[in-house]
Amino acid sequence: MSDVADWWTTEIIDMQPGKIHFRGRPIEDLIGNVTFPQMVWLMTRGDLPTADQAKLLEAALVAAVDHGPQAPSIAAARMAVTCGLSLNGAMANAVNMLDDIHGGAGEQAVMLYHEIDRAVDAGETLEAATAAAIRTFRAEKGKYIPGFGHRFHKPVDPRSPRLLALVDAAAETGTVSGRFAAIGRAIAAHLEAARGKPVPMNIDGATAVIYAELGFAPPLARGLFCLSRSVGALAHGWEQMQQGGRNKGPTPPHYRWTYKGPDPMS
Amino acid sequence: MSDVADWWTTEIIDMQPGKIHFRGRPIEDLIGNVTFPQMVWLMTRGDLPTADQAKLLEAALVAAVDHGPQAPSIAAARMAVTCGLSLNGAMANAVNMLDDIHGGAGEQAVMLYHEIDRAVDAGETLEAATAAAIRTFRAEKGKYIPGFGHRFHKPVDPRSPRLLALVDAAAETGTVSGRFAAIGRAIAAHLEAARGKPVPMNIDGATAVIYAELGFAPPLARGLFCLSRSVGALAHGWEQMQQGGRNKGPTPPHYRWTYKGPDPMS
Amino acid sequence: MSDVADWWTTEIIDMQPGKIHFRGRPIEDLIGNVTFPQMVWLMTRGDLPTADQAKLLEAALVAAVDHGPQAPSIAAARMAVTCGLSLNGAMANAVNMLDDIHGGAGEQAVMLYHEIDRAVDAGETLEAATAAAIRTFRAEKGKYIPGFGHRFHKPVDPRSPRLLALVDAAAETGTVSGRFAAIGRAIAAHLEAARGKPVPMNIDGATAVIYAELGFAPPLARGLFCLSRSVGALAHGWEQMQQGGRNKGPTPPHYRWTYKGPDPMS
Amino acid sequence: MSDVADWWTTEIIDMQPGKIHFRGRPIEDLIGNVTFPQMVWLMTRGDLPTADQAKLLEAALVAAVDHGPQAPSIAAARMAVTCGLSLNGAMANAVNMLDDIHGGAGEQAVMLYHEIDRAVDAGETLEAATAAAIRTFRAEKGKYIPGFGHRFHKPVDPRSPRLLALVDAAAETGTVSGRFAAIGRAIAAHLEAARGKPVPMNIDGATAVIYAELGFAPPLARGLFCLSRSVGALAHGWEQMQQGGRNKGPTPPHYRWTYKGPDPMS
Repeated sequence: MSDVADWWTTEIIDMQPGKIHFRGRPIEDLIGNVTFPQMVWLMTRGDLPTADQAKLLEAALVAAVDHGPQAPSIAAARMAVTCGLSLNGAMANAVNMLDDIHGGAGEQAVMLYHEIDRAVDAGETLEAATAAAIRTFRAEKGKYIPGFGHRFHKPVDPRSPRLLALVDAAAETGTVSGRFAAIGRAIAAHLEAARGKPVPMNIDGATAVIYAELGFAPPLARGLFCLSRSVGALAHGWEQMQQGGRNKGPTPPHYRWTYKGPDPMS
Repeated sequence: MSDVADWWTTEIIDMQPGKIHFRGRPIEDLIGNVTFPQMVWLMTRGDLPTADQAKLLEAALVAAVDHGPQAPSIAAARMAVTCGLSLNGAMANAVNMLDDIHGGAGEQAVMLYHEIDRAVDAGETLEAATAAAIRTFRAEKGKYIPGFGHRFHKPVDPRSPRLLALVDAAAETGTVSGRFAAIGRAIAAHLEAARGKPVPMNIDGATAVIYAELGFAPPLARGLFCLSRSVGALAHGWEQMQQGGRNKGPTPPHYRWTYKGPDPMS
Repeated sequence: MSDVADWWTTEIIDMQPGKIHFRGRPIEDLIGNVTFPQMVWLMTRGDLPTADQAKLLEAALVAAVDHGPQAPSIAAARMAVTCGLSLNGAMANAVNMLDDIHGGAGEQAVMLYHEIDRAVDAGETLEAATAAAIRTFRAEKGKYIPGFGHRFHKPVDPRSPRLLALVDAAAETGTVSGRFAAIGRAIAAHLEAARGKPVPMNIDGATAVIYAELGFAPPLARGLFCLSRSVGALAHGWEQMQQGGRNKGPTPPHYRWTYKGPDPMS
Repeated sequence: MSDVADWWTTEIIDMQPGKIHFRGRPIEDLIGNVTFPQMVWLMTRGDLPTADQAKLLEAALVAAVDHGPQAPSIAAARMAVTCGLSLNGAMANAVNMLDDIHGGAGEQAVMLYHEIDRAVDAGETLEAATAAAIRTFRAEKGKYIPGFGHRFHKPVDPRSPRLLALVDAAAETGTVSGRFAAIGRAIAAHLEAARGKPVPMNIDGATAVIYAELGFAPPLARGLFCLSRSVGALAHGWEQMQQGGRNKGPTPPHYRWTYKGPDPMS
């Protein structure tokens, strides 16, 4: 029996009939005593955060719940409901969309921040470390610096300054170090100087500052965004369910698409 | 342009460049000022709950995050990571699993509670209404009464009494009416009398009591469970990512399965 | 070890190191000797079809591969690629969309055909059986008769008459009985008489005729449609991958959606 | 209207009411006249293959349909059905699993073959090009050479020699060049020499030879595998549906998993 039971091993949950422990804590002690963000932290990291840490995490989770029916994630949830899926299917289709491009910017931003942080730790100036990291990123991964600039929210994404203000406040009380907020601002400053116009931190860059400040590993930045956006998928899926509609594609059907293929062959 | 913009309509989010409002509230006013459960409520229902309502919702969300790697949802998340998926894909595969059987019991329980509640409102006794609703359910939908009994947690699921105690406390302060807790207990009593042994309320039955008390529509019971279980999928997916492992199936490969098909034909 | 190996049992595949048998047949005997539709039949039903049966199945599989980027399935595949998913994720999101409304019409049509077929078997006329089945369907499930009428292809879906012609030819040679084609036509005739205008069989109705004629169970009609549409999801996902594009929502972003929620609160 | 219609552009499908053309060909001319593999080719590449090309593609599609309930893809499909999902959801969960590790080996193998082919084209010997490509792959991507070796099928995967024999036959008739079969064999020879024991081509390596010979781009090797494996997901999902079972996790529930976390805290 042991090799079967050993096939999946976990430090997260211990279970016997009538007993469920998470990270060594009985579930009945957690229910009603920890907040949802504290539970998220406990589950993903093994310990409980302070109330202040949890509040900062909570702010990030609240900030990214939704960006409207034009976001592929939300569009997928709404379409799914008109195809007959229940809310689990609608949420699954939405969350699956949050891959490297739609959901990975936060993860990539945390990695970029870490790289700059290590260089600063090793003695470089923040400006030099930032410039070097951006150069490397562009050489290896592409022109878009994850977490900065927004094709829609100009001049600024309203979520970012609010989130940064919360980080600054948390830095003042010692809840976080504030060094990743400084790194994020250094990136924005570098990009603005290079382009001659503001390239402000967007929601991914700002939540990445929080996740980095709180010590979450890069892949968790993506995972936490998925959790946050699940709320929007749930809300929009449910609203669509109440509205009805059948097999709704992207636009009213008569718009269709542009065909650029060969002429008819027969 | 109007028929395109009219194709998707929503009461949830209003957006302009630099502006994001949810249910009429600027996102910058929500970030840092509402809890995650309050945001979930606002998004799905349009108004903000009281702090006490939000805490009861939070308890339900905390309670159902995980049931271990043997739950199909969590198994899917862990397997997904060993197949190369990122956390969005792992969470999507997990949440998709939460269909009628794995994730629908809470929704069905709320519907059952509502049916009993309506009958009581119409003048039946709680016992008679409960007996009738169970009889109807079995005739139309099958033998398992959603939200009651557990194949694993015997004698009792440790989450249920804790959740019910919170409901009772909330009923005492007038946060909720307490009538759905009474309905849930009436179902358990009815089932126990019929079987001659306890058939206690399980996690789905107990969270359904909370969702019904708080006024969530039945499909939202499923959706909220999906949101809650997403935390477990995230935590287990991330743990599996750190453990490594490639293409992990259900058991060590040498166990395989039982073949009951035809003999070899050549 | 036995209860582990017994947990999953199958008549489909027998495997040992160096040996893979499907339904009792060595894979090396199948590769190069059976067509893909024959393999689909073998896997789902346990025996090999005749060449003529397989060709009729193949016609149905070819017919439903794609309905353009406005179909939610295809839209999901294309959006997915712009979100960073690989083709597996794009295809998964597309196929997941094929639920009761987008992908279930064929399954429901086969069920409806079976009901009429049983009534005819029991001695009713085709017309009476058809009228009764439609009446029952509308009373229990809704106004749309699955497989008939099309909001877009007017006057007629070009796939349906072609598929029916193949069924007729197969009926002449005795490959199929032709009675489900007759049932399908009886439904169309009944609907036309009732509405005073043609309500022709659509792709779901026509492929359902083929699946019923070939003896596929109703859920397989949905499954085979999923398999067929996977080709379109693959082709469109791949085309989108070559085109590029990032986070493409349903329309150009400036169209957004119509907001009907409350006025700003602060 | 034009920017809406231009948002999605395609060379695949042209549609008007009553008209559906794929790559310039009316659907009614394709149904009954092209095989399913020919349709797959037409959809993904824009032209129709010869009958011999289509047969080679068909052999690859037949070969990879299933690897049993221990494969994460098939396990996901079977679990999904026990969670209440329909076949579309079961197939979606299965196909989503086919990411880099579970489904990407064929794609990676085609890329590796292409790299060797380019080096040979540029004048290197096959042996030198092979050794260099393997060295580069290991330095950049990891120790597992995609498409070679199998943890289960020892000494040899029965599908690979059969597929290679079909490639050899096709090379003799000029249907394909045979140079990717030579490359695949060169890799196997190199690995065997290095390890001192056979590291035979597996199903991914063998189908990759076929896809490369037929001119499919690397991502299509993954996509075609997804299409092929969809058949197994469909068959196993359907079999599980007939078997019943509720919420089936990886093993009988009493096995659970190994807990390695902290001791109980209260």
